[in-house]
Amino acid sequence: MTNLLPALSLSSNSQFTPQNPLKLYYSHSSPPSLPTKFLLLPILCSKSANSPSPSLRWVPEWADAVKERGMRKRRALYTPDDWRAHRSSSRHLRHLLSSLSSRVILSLIPPVFSLTAVAAALALYNSAVSLAWLPDFFPLFRASSLPYQLTAPALALLLVFRTEASYSRFVEGRKAWMKVVAGANELAGMVMSVRGNNCGADAGVRRELLNYIMAFPVALKCHVINGSDIRSDLQNLLEEDDLSVVVRSKHRPRCIIEFISQSLQILHLEEPKRNSLEMKISCFHEGIGVCEQLMGIPIPLSYTRLTSRFLVLWHLTLPVILWDDCNWIVVPATFISAASLFCIEEVGVLIEEPFPMLALDDLCKQLHDSIREAMAIENQVHVRLLAKMKGHSDGHSINGWPSSKTEQG
Amino acid sequence: MTNLLPALSLSSNSQFTPQNPLKLYYSHSSPPSLPTKFLLLPILCSKSANSPSPSLRWVPEWADAVKERGMRKRRALYTPDDWRAHRSSSRHLRHLLSSLSSRVILSLIPPVFSLTAVAAALALYNSAVSLAWLPDFFPLFRASSLPYQLTAPALALLLVFRTEASYSRFVEGRKAWMKVVAGANELAGMVMSVRGNNCGADAGVRRELLNYIMAFPVALKCHVINGSDIRSDLQNLLEEDDLSVVVRSKHRPRCIIEFISQSLQILHLEEPKRNSLEMKISCFHEGIGVCEQLMGIPIPLSYTRLTSRFLVLWHLTLPVILWDDCNWIVVPATFISAASLFCIEEVGVLIEEPFPMLALDDLCKQLHDSIREAMAIENQVHVRLLAKMKGHSDGHSINGWPSSKTEQG
Amino acid sequence: MTNLLPALSLSSNSQFTPQNPLKLYYSHSSPPSLPTKFLLLPILCSKSANSPSPSLRWVPEWADAVKERGMRKRRALYTPDDWRAHRSSSRHLRHLLSSLSSRVILSLIPPVFSLTAVAAALALYNSAVSLAWLPDFFPLFRASSLPYQLTAPALALLLVFRTEASYSRFVEGRKAWMKVVAGANELAGMVMSVRGNNCGADAGVRRELLNYIMAFPVALKCHVINGSDIRSDLQNLLEEDDLSVVVRSKHRPRCIIEFISQSLQILHLEEPKRNSLEMKISCFHEGIGVCEQLMGIPIPLSYTRLTSRFLVLWHLTLPVILWDDCNWIVVPATFISAASLFCIEEVGVLIEEPFPMLALDDLCKQLHDSIREAMAIENQVHVRLLAKMKGHSDGHSINGWPSSKTEQG
Amino acid sequence: MTNLLPALSLSSNSQFTPQNPLKLYYSHSSPPSLPTKFLLLPILCSKSANSPSPSLRWVPEWADAVKERGMRKRRALYTPDDWRAHRSSSRHLRHLLSSLSSRVILSLIPPVFSLTAVAAALALYNSAVSLAWLPDFFPLFRASSLPYQLTAPALALLLVFRTEASYSRFVEGRKAWMKVVAGANELAGMVMSVRGNNCGADAGVRRELLNYIMAFPVALKCHVINGSDIRSDLQNLLEEDDLSVVVRSKHRPRCIIEFISQSLQILHLEEPKRNSLEMKISCFHEGIGVCEQLMGIPIPLSYTRLTSRFLVLWHLTLPVILWDDCNWIVVPATFISAASLFCIEEVGVLIEEPFPMLALDDLCKQLHDSIREAMAIENQVHVRLLAKMKGHSDGHSINGWPSSKTEQG
Amino acid sequence: MTNLLPALSLSSNSQFTPQNPLKLYYSHSSPPSLPTKFLLLPILCSKSANSPSPSLRWVPEWADAVKERGMRKRRALYTPDDWRAHRSSSRHLRHLLSSLSSRVILSLIPPVFSLTAVAAALALYNSAVSLAWLPDFFPLFRASSLPYQLTAPALALLLVFRTEASYSRFVEGRKAWMKVVAGANELAGMVMSVRGNNCGADAGVRRELLNYIMAFPVALKCHVINGSDIRSDLQNLLEEDDLSVVVRSKHRPRCIIEFISQSLQILHLEEPKRNSLEMKISCFHEGIGVCEQLMGIPIPLSYTRLTSRFLVLWHLTLPVILWDDCNWIVVPATFISAASLFCIEEVGVLIEEPFPMLALDDLCKQLHDSIREAMAIENQVHVRLLAKMKGHSDGHSINGWPSSKTEQG
Repeated sequence: MTNLLPALSLSSNSQFTPQNPLKLYYSHSSPPSLPTKFLLLPILCSKSANSPSPSLRWVPEWADAVKERGMRKRRALYTPDDWRAHRSSSRHLRHLLSSLSSRVILSLIPPVFSLTAVAAALALYNSAVSLAWLPDFFPLFRASSLPYQLTAPALALLLVFRTEASYSRFVEGRKAWMKVVAGANELAGMVMSVRGNNCGADAGVRRELLNYIMAFPVALKCHVINGSDIRSDLQNLLEEDDLSVVVRSKHRPRCIIEFISQSLQILHLEEPKRNSLEMKISCFHEGIGVCEQLMGIPIPLSYTRLTSRFLVLWHLTLPVILWDDCNWIVVPATFISAASLFCIEEVGVLIEEPFPMLALDDLCKQLHDSIREAMAIENQVHVRLLAKMKGHSDGHSINGWPSSKTEQG
Repeated sequence: MTNLLPALSLSSNSQFTPQNPLKLYYSHSSPPSLPTKFLLLPILCSKSANSPSPSLRWVPEWADAVKERGMRKRRALYTPDDWRAHRSSSRHLRHLLSSLSSRVILSLIPPVFSLTAVAAALALYNSAVSLAWLPDFFPLFRASSLPYQLTAPALALLLVFRTEASYSRFVEGRKAWMKVVAGANELAGMVMSVRGNNCGADAGVRRELLNYIMAFPVALKCHVINGSDIRSDLQNLLEEDDLSVVVRSKHRPRCIIEFISQSLQILHLEEPKRNSLEMKISCFHEGIGVCEQLMGIPIPLSYTRLTSRFLVLWHLTLPVILWDDCNWIVVPATFISAASLFCIEEVGVLIEEPFPMLALDDLCKQLHDSIREAMAIENQVHVRLLAKMKGHSDGHSINGWPSSKTEQG
Repeated sequence: MTNLLPALSLSSNSQFTPQNPLKLYYSHSSPPSLPTKFLLLPILCSKSANSPSPSLRWVPEWADAVKERGMRKRRALYTPDDWRAHRSSSRHLRHLLSSLSSRVILSLIPPVFSLTAVAAALALYNSAVSLAWLPDFFPLFRASSLPYQLTAPALALLLVFRTEASYSRFVEGRKAWMKVVAGANELAGMVMSVRGNNCGADAGVRRELLNYIMAFPVALKCHVINGSDIRSDLQNLLEEDDLSVVVRSKHRPRCIIEFISQSLQILHLEEPKRNSLEMKISCFHEGIGVCEQLMGIPIPLSYTRLTSRFLVLWHLTLPVILWDDCNWIVVPATFISAASLFCIEEVGVLIEEPFPMLALDDLCKQLHDSIREAMAIENQVHVRLLAKMKGHSDGHSINGWPSSKTEQG
Repeated sequence: MTNLLPALSLSSNSQFTPQNPLKLYYSHSSPPSLPTKFLLLPILCSKSANSPSPSLRWVPEWADAVKERGMRKRRALYTPDDWRAHRSSSRHLRHLLSSLSSRVILSLIPPVFSLTAVAAALALYNSAVSLAWLPDFFPLFRASSLPYQLTAPALALLLVFRTEASYSRFVEGRKAWMKVVAGANELAGMVMSVRGNNCGADAGVRRELLNYIMAFPVALKCHVINGSDIRSDLQNLLEEDDLSVVVRSKHRPRCIIEFISQSLQILHLEEPKRNSLEMKISCFHEGIGVCEQLMGIPIPLSYTRLTSRFLVLWHLTLPVILWDDCNWIVVPATFISAASLFCIEEVGVLIEEPFPMLALDDLCKQLHDSIREAMAIENQVHVRLLAKMKGHSDGHSINGWPSSKTEQG
Repeated sequence: MTNLLPALSLSSNSQFTPQNPLKLYYSHSSPPSLPTKFLLLPILCSKSANSPSPSLRWVPEWADAVKERGMRKRRALYTPDDWRAHRSSSRHLRHLLSSLSSRVILSLIPPVFSLTAVAAALALYNSAVSLAWLPDFFPLFRASSLPYQLTAPALALLLVFRTEASYSRFVEGRKAWMKVVAGANELAGMVMSVRGNNCGADAGVRRELLNYIMAFPVALKCHVINGSDIRSDLQNLLEEDDLSVVVRSKHRPRCIIEFISQSLQILHLEEPKRNSLEMKISCFHEGIGVCEQLMGIPIPLSYTRLTSRFLVLWHLTLPVILWDDCNWIVVPATFISAASLFCIEEVGVLIEEPFPMLALDDLCKQLHDSIREAMAIENQVHVRLLAKMKGHSDGHSINGWPSSKTEQG
């Protein structure tokens, strides 16, 4: 770029492009951050102006209502058929067609349309200036795109890393539940394998204990998901009186643990066996701990706010940056850019709270079925092994095994 | 860029480039996102139009059939020779030549060709407009590439991070299996080292127990891989009656655990030993837990859909962005870009479901061989140690060791 | 770019653009890094000049005071309502409006305004040179942006990775607290389930022990948060004499552990039970270990300094790079770029020290409530189970359970 | 860019640049992906043509031979001096000078030179077209670089993430070995601290046991490194007869575990002690598990192939993209780009198989020395403690300690 | 870019820009990678020429000496005041001002200045060619920057990921020490809580044991930090005779473990208690394992060398790439780029060896103070609990507690 005539070079590079070259130096002596500040005004005004005007406020409220309904939707565990559809080559078309009914996308409408409106307003203003419809002292808002090219990777990284941090919370929640479910399964297995002498009383306690174990994940689910109805979820597992104790308590999962722990004390067990059973309860305490922390402690708010502010500022000033290259195309360009990047942020915020995203109801049901199945199969296995033992050595006394056992179904 | 004559500047920067400057302001007053929407129509129509027309629907169906066949292919464990080929400097040529037979690539045909067709259609339309074959009010579709340059890193990061998330699921599945296999190996080792007094009965139970332990990973494999035939896989390990109990149960790995657990009760053991054996079963419960969660809970769907939609939107609008720079080259450019980026997404989706990718059959076989080998070597080791003990001190009574032991082989 | 006349090409590409073409070769023979060094001088001088002049020094001091006040603010655990606001679609507006009251942003004022001032000074100087207000031998400071485009990804990555490293410290701190809380909960549960024969003395010790367990996280919180008042925090939990022992000790959490450990020795317990209770104390030792390390060992300082220096150097030279493209727009461009990137760095530094960011007070209170609730519910659960046992088999002797138990409330 | 004359704009932007404008529309109606396909041909032909011609095939074979020799090279543990050289400021020069003897770089010769040859061929062809040495209907191969700029971040991320995945396998292997070594050390320590009454026999068994423990990592090393000679490695540790049992077995580490496990049965120990010793063996099983999985299950092949194909395709088409900007410089540019990116991929493939990269021999030796040293020091420590005990209280009976112990040395 | 006249287009794009258009085709027929190779010569020669000439070799030696002094500097644990300075808003200024005294930066002088010198030499040569001071056949070295823009993200990612890998080693080392310290603390706590009957002898052993436990981290620190003086560090903890045993042994931490392990055998303990104490020693073995591996096994050298070579090659050719855009500005541009990127690499290499970076001395001292404090507080706590017990029930016999205990201070 030849710059032999600096003055001319300056004017030819001038970003404000006043219609009158004499105003050039005046505009340079004005505070240079003015255009940016000026640009912020309309969006702030129009939006804070929304607060009193109920006619415009319904948009974000409607979007939030849609999203909240989405949050309460039941998630289901994936089946092999779901996986087949998941990897089918027609998935892209399916995802594209479902865009307009997607709750994530609908909830993006307020920010994306506001920013697109700002872009449209700027385009209108700049066109008016270009066509000299406005007095000469109105400057054209445009700027070099170079600073944006230099900071674009930082924004992209920040956005995607924040989404990653949310995803790792999702994984943490998933693993915590995995441990709770595996622990419950194992505890149930250990309780089933305990066969005391006084079958009558102990068998009843064992059956109750298995119910309490199955009830724990349900209570934990209700603890972590806002607005769940613990009474209806648990009424098939617990007796009415137990249930009322649980419902009345302030910390339901803890209360179920108390039931489990005291039931273990009642069972006739040797001390080391009881110890190893009690040890398994630590899975449950840890599960409560992880769940409560994930619910109580979000990603540091300064991080979240930084991402959000960076995104908004970026898109507020984007039309200025793009004006030279795009003119009226700034409007669809801002729309597409905002839709893409705000969608990444939105997904990051959604999975930051992992429990509504996890199919906890199905996990509890799966655990329930698995324990019921184990109880059902127990007797068959016992019969098989007895038969085999007979085959090996008739009349051997098998250690600690009741000679007849029919109380299980 | 000199802008001293704004009106001229506007028309010279105009992206729609109407043949008639008078139409300029009309096109500006139309909703600005129209070109994008307009652009979406053909692909949506042509594709949803595919649904009724069976002549075109066979393409994605064929691609899916190819992929499903690929999913069912048996994976083998890597051998040293495989590694040598893996790092051979001719691997790049081999991979390139196998591209056209690669199932991953074949399953990309539907989306990539659809998007290339859109690019070709747009190129045709734009050429027609440029050559004035169409009436003047048809605008030329073109736009500045700047917004795409600014969001390209976000797309790339999103895509690669999603692939990373899938890969970490793959690693999680691999490690879960590692723990199951190591746990089974150790449990088998502990069972083998148990030598009670009543050799007759216990030896039989021990042998059965080892079979159950070897059967567990096989049952788990059949549990996590859709369409596997547990009866044929297990018939060499379990007796017919045991097998029918297992096959009839709804949760087969759980049923095998029941067999193992009850067999442990039958064995004549001191209580602490039995406890430590029972503790090892927790590996199996945890293995089931991880496997069921990986199968039941995919990467959050909002994340997956976001990636897919971002990719499709990007490539639908890419030809518009590239038109100025590339003209008809938009068609190969869209093709190459779509092929590359959709392939990353495809690989991410494929490894999201880790178990069909893992050589589980070989892992089970490896475990089986290892336990069989340990059973075979046990006696030799015993003989060696006895001989040595003799050397150290003749006639010492060795604790808990039967004086003659021949039942193993 | 046509280069048929090399000499002319050189002059047309010349970055210094001396007003006098004859000086061109002179400026080339001068040390080439001079402009950069020269550029560094004003900022260094003006800033180190700040030290003596108290009139300017108040800015960073005020910023630090604001930040320190922010550090001492109590964080609260997130509630479902907080989450609803967190994912509300109006959050972007809320974050934007709160920007000016954000402590993070206020504390950025000193570096960002200094750098913006440098940019303004450079713009002023360059304008003066361009308009020939200065003698001819003053060169215009401008340079190609290419080297910056090539290193921009490295800066962005470095910045975001450092923030990620800080965030992973935050997660480490959060998980350490999770383990402490879960361990305390479990230990309390185990202590409650211990029911010796001599109710009188042991019941008192158990109650004290539960208080000590509840006191441990509080003591740890005071240990990790500078300037907390342990006496007021603990006075509801410990007796006056215990409290004075704790306050006098140099390592309060360790002292509470001593109380717990010795109380366990006093309780009448079987040895294995006591052992498993003592084992749980390892959670506390590990919690202290993680907390002390996170406080004592920051991210390697060379890494932190590298990021800070890279950022400052980048923004000091940014106006030179942008001059050709942006002219006076360098000032807002530098401002926005510095605000964005320094804000990322600032957030990274803030979460590097995780404990003031965590709602430790609320976590302690939550633990306290949970244990109190468990103590309250214990009796109800006991009554329920007794009633059930009666239903199963009247008059059965239940193992180790006192016939009447009323000391709990 | 002014586009008032669309037809002229089209021809001025045309990428094929036919010498004859009339051919323009013909070339547009031809399938647009033709240049890419056409481009692929020479490399495929020339390479698959390599297969029969033995004169050219020696290049990749020689490169592979060099690499395989590199794989078999013994790695040594780093010493403080190595670290000093590692961080010395002259390391960059050292690394640069050793480039040409680096096995990694030599093994890159086949792909990099092939791709450079393609670039040279294309440059030759394009020059010929430009100089009109060829008939008019030969098009010039050139295209806009924009699509490449948009997908470059995706390629870079893919490449570096794959390398990261390989590196995390390396770390996994390293940590697995760390656990094996620490476990062996601890087990040895526990065995040494066992002091039964019948010194004669047990002392011999203990010494054998320590040898078996030292032999385990050696056997595992031979198991994971292809082509190692277990007989020579173990002959100093095991007696000839033991060795022949080990060598004959199919799974040598498993066989050593059997020796350890059975020796533990022979030792005179209390049951809980024996249990805690047996528990330590789980480290070994887990070590085998991790090692076998890392060897048997590479990074998913679809991922690896994707990276390789993406790289090759990218570099095959790179000269077309660069022609406008670089002309004959495409040849060195392709060379440098291919050398850099293929080198990243090569390193990723090399560390994917971690064990030949780890100094396993030295680790085994270090463990061996450490255990020998512990055996040597044991007696001195014993003497010191006895002396001290005497100081404290003469004639006290020390629990379970033989009054005279001289068999260790 | 209009290309209607290909021949002219070629010459206008020619990168070598020979002064004589007739030489154009000659220069094209010369090997195209010549400029790169030619470029490598001076740096290699000048540097390998450094080896004999002692006058220039002092620069890297001085830089290394500075760095080694920095490595030996004691690191201190961070205090609250350090954190306040760490997050103070004046930190950027402080870091900038300390740049010139930073050891990291001083050690960068050799590579950065060499590369800047190459850039200066190239600029000089190119200026000479441009001004026709050299004969016509000397080509101008310049090239398009496009290939560099395409590979810049790969370099940045590689560099930052390598730094991340180093940082994760740092974190691994930190966590290993955390576990050692927490384990030592817990072991000490368990030893203190052991109160046998024969106070006289056992109290002495316990006190010695606590000293050995405090000595272990010190010995480990001396083991991992080159050039530390174990005798002076341990002389306050161990008796002279013990110390001489430790110093004489080849593996000091292992020797201390032997002392701990044998002392545990001497203490009068029940077997399960002794077992749980012995179990804690596994922390120490694992700590040794992690430390020795981090010291012995660096990040794979091929990875490190790749990064270093990529960096050097990139900066050697950078001036060629930048010449068109920057002319003499290539010199400061190369300087800044090299300083930034080599600094990232340098930091990555520095933290790759984590132990000299960690405040191990302070950690050991902190542990020492904590255990001493626990010993000091033990008695006070005991008195308090006794008093309370009296309050609850006078004259109760407290289990296993000596009636008078004064040996602790």
